[in-house]
Amino acid sequence: MYTDRVRLPCLLGKVMSAADAALLIEDGMTVGMSGFTRAGEAKAVPQALAERAKHSPLKISLMTGASLGNDLDKQLTEAGVLARRMPFQVDSTLRKAINAGEVMFIDQHLSETVEQLRNHQLKLPDIAVIEAVAITEQGHIVPTTSVGNSASFAIFAKQVIVEINLAHNPNLEGLHDIYIPTYRPTRTPIPLTRVQDRIGSGAIAIDPAKIVAIVVTDKPDSPSTVLPPDADTQGIANHLIDFFKREVAAGRMTDSLGPLQAGIGSIANAVMCGLIDSPFQNLTMYSEVLQDSTFDLIDAGKLSFASGSSITLSQRRNADVFGNLEQYKDKLVLRPQEISNHPEVVRRLGIIGINTALEFDLYGNVNSTHVGGTKMMNGIGGSGDFARNAHLAIFVTKSIAKGGAISSVVPMVSHVDHTEHDVDILVTEQGLADLRGLAPRERARAVIDNCVHPDYRDALNQYFAAACAKGGHTPHLLREALQWHINLEENGHMLWPSAEAAKLA
Amino acid sequence: MYTDRVRLPCLLGKVMSAADAALLIEDGMTVGMSGFTRAGEAKAVPQALAERAKHSPLKISLMTGASLGNDLDKQLTEAGVLARRMPFQVDSTLRKAINAGEVMFIDQHLSETVEQLRNHQLKLPDIAVIEAVAITEQGHIVPTTSVGNSASFAIFAKQVIVEINLAHNPNLEGLHDIYIPTYRPTRTPIPLTRVQDRIGSGAIAIDPAKIVAIVVTDKPDSPSTVLPPDADTQGIANHLIDFFKREVAAGRMTDSLGPLQAGIGSIANAVMCGLIDSPFQNLTMYSEVLQDSTFDLIDAGKLSFASGSSITLSQRRNADVFGNLEQYKDKLVLRPQEISNHPEVVRRLGIIGINTALEFDLYGNVNSTHVGGTKMMNGIGGSGDFARNAHLAIFVTKSIAKGGAISSVVPMVSHVDHTEHDVDILVTEQGLADLRGLAPRERARAVIDNCVHPDYRDALNQYFAAACAKGGHTPHLLREALQWHINLEENGHMLWPSAEAAKLA
Repeated sequence: MYTDRVRLPCLLGKVMSAADAALLIEDGMTVGMSGFTRAGEAKAVPQALAERAKHSPLKISLMTGASLGNDLDKQLTEAGVLARRMPFQVDSTLRKAINAGEVMFIDQHLSETVEQLRNHQLKLPDIAVIEAVAITEQGHIVPTTSVGNSASFAIFAKQVIVEINLAHNPNLEGLHDIYIPTYRPTRTPIPLTRVQDRIGSGAIAIDPAKIVAIVVTDKPDSPSTVLPPDADTQGIANHLIDFFKREVAAGRMTDSLGPLQAGIGSIANAVMCGLIDSPFQNLTMYSEVLQDSTFDLIDAGKLSFASGSSITLSQRRNADVFGNLEQYKDKLVLRPQEISNHPEVVRRLGIIGINTALEFDLYGNVNSTHVGGTKMMNGIGGSGDFARNAHLAIFVTKSIAKGGAISSVVPMVSHVDHTEHDVDILVTEQGLADLRGLAPRERARAVIDNCVHPDYRDALNQYFAAACAKGGHTPHLLREALQWHINLEENGHMLWPSAEAAKLA
Repeated sequence: MYTDRVRLPCLLGKVMSAADAALLIEDGMTVGMSGFTRAGEAKAVPQALAERAKHSPLKISLMTGASLGNDLDKQLTEAGVLARRMPFQVDSTLRKAINAGEVMFIDQHLSETVEQLRNHQLKLPDIAVIEAVAITEQGHIVPTTSVGNSASFAIFAKQVIVEINLAHNPNLEGLHDIYIPTYRPTRTPIPLTRVQDRIGSGAIAIDPAKIVAIVVTDKPDSPSTVLPPDADTQGIANHLIDFFKREVAAGRMTDSLGPLQAGIGSIANAVMCGLIDSPFQNLTMYSEVLQDSTFDLIDAGKLSFASGSSITLSQRRNADVFGNLEQYKDKLVLRPQEISNHPEVVRRLGIIGINTALEFDLYGNVNSTHVGGTKMMNGIGGSGDFARNAHLAIFVTKSIAKGGAISSVVPMVSHVDHTEHDVDILVTEQGLADLRGLAPRERARAVIDNCVHPDYRDALNQYFAAACAKGGHTPHLLREALQWHINLEENGHMLWPSAEAAKLA
């Protein structure tokens, strides 16, 4: 069954159970595992590790590409295995542990983790655990539905455990393009000038002697939890499509736009779906995660090529994409996240980056990560890699949340992930603010007039007017700047008691 | 006198007075002028424009490379000429107008202005005014002591005014390397892999028919106002040199370190001077401004090559550098700021970026621009271009200011220019915090233990302990996070009345 997947015969002797392989991971180790946006994560070994930790406690520092599926972060957290975790996660149990200060979480730009490893600025992984569809005749590792940081983890680790996952279609082989930047000071340019360029090899080239264990599994990736478009996300998509039309009309883009990047999640996915009925054509993607919308756009004849670091699909789309992979394969490539998100390439290609904001402020500063300025949601992910160097740095969010108790547009964000310098366009279902070339006071006008929910517009106008009366390049009232967040924390509504007080007055 | 500087004879007929040339600039125009860190700015035409505006009011949108010398921003502000200004300034009169909301200031990453122009995301300059040492036989423009954005301004503008400045040594010719990225979607990698590489031409290539006026001047650049090292800046330099020694010992750098970038100003200059007596050798710089310290290091035999976008020297150093330029010329190159600061090159070369913070917080977020969160100081400049992609993103500042009324280390910065994701090392005269690979709570411990002034340490410890008790990945107390800034604004001291209250309690 698996013997045709391990094509270097001498490695067949390394096949063992997940429990035995997990014994290679020792207390205090740094472990690099495959997995990016719930795609292609090693599944059996981390689960066996969590099992073992229940009766034989141990702690590790765990690095991945991004988030893991199959509740692995939950299981590892509950088993007390995680001392440190980087660079991204989306699990609610792990999130609680991070916010309680029990797990040290290092929230990084996704392009930077392996760069810091390469320069020995982070501790190298002692061991890597990589999911694969096959091991080649040369002993090289063919990843599955994500590349993430797997290639560099396998290269840097002293020992490598490979999980051969029979649930993945073996014809994923050929989809990957593994390029690793050379070392400084003799590093050369990344020779990628078009979305579809292949610049590396089809498998992760390591010394096969480093492969110390092979575990055979058959558990599928978790499906994505993306929600279908609703009226608000459709509104956001419509505003953005109208904006793109104006950009084309102004001669700033062709009707193929530019290479598109969309962050993970329901809003960005809905925006991409909105392009199906748009007048644009021959679209391309240069993104980190390829979601349902990527394949919907290919099926609609709108998207000619998509480059990413992972494929994460809903239950609905999973079978017809991976069951019919041959019909998509010449339009796809999966790259290491260092390359999918590399600032050099993002700037060169002129990406249109569409990412989700948790909240943004009057002046266009964006909070992507911290609820109420303190509680980690998921992490910055690749949003900074793209926004900083994009042709257009676009952030989208619904204007209100929690039935109106929260405004996503606030006087001052409670945490900054993207500064005003890096944000071009803000969109809510209310409208779109084009901040390019505007000074802060002008940005505020555009944000209030276009993005804020009507229930919060007066309050935001009042804040801005009072702040301007006080002066400054970026007017603020420090005593009131975070009051909306304080109201929410203390009273459950951003405008309470202020709004109540105003009514009484 | 100037005829040998204008080597395309047909252009000699374009020589005119500054007043006449200034008449080409009309009300409402967008004007791109040379000038970067008080070096190589057009001098006579803006002055004539300010004169003219006194009796014949007009408004323009002014773009430069960075700051101007010779009080030009002051004169233009006082004459009411500036409607809009980008991307950087350092003038106190202009600063007041910006903070009063009278001049719309667009504070940009210095690598991005011409990229946005190239993509028509900013209005192209109607006219460019460029200081030059010469115009070549082909009608190409040879810049003076800065390149800045001059090349792209001249390329994009419909009309170009050239100021031939006889005060500059004509042998500046040969110092410049003008490379302009190609247009998307066929842009190619920037072929620069070593600090000393020359990849472009020695002059700005434009159609000479666009040169509509030539003005002859002889006013020198303003000298830099850099202060000599003091005990505190020497302390910062010492901490940083000790850190570099540890990095070399750990094998993470060689004793040539990496290409150095130092922000403008006294602190960064002092840090660079500190390297003169260090054990490091064959140092290189890949920076935006080359200050006194660059030449002190060359004279000391420590620095083998320096790449920048401008040369800004003190009165003391000016004559002996520009009077003996031949002895430095093979160790120098001046590039467009788009290239000196380009994320592609910064990441490839592995820059060590040393920039000055106005303040930073517990978690390593840095404010480079806004006093009290509202009042613009100078602008972000190139600090973000370097910090985001540097091998080491280092920020330096004295731990206190205004005789101790201000702590540069605060619970929460009042404005964020560099997020925690982009900051590796923080240094004050108190010590150095190495934040690499640390989670926020660990970063806070490193910052408090190493960087904060003793007078503020207890208060910061108290804040951090109370915030941790409340929880969160990045613990904060929103009601108190900006209290130090509010205290300063209202009472003139960051810990008053809190400290007084504490004493009474």
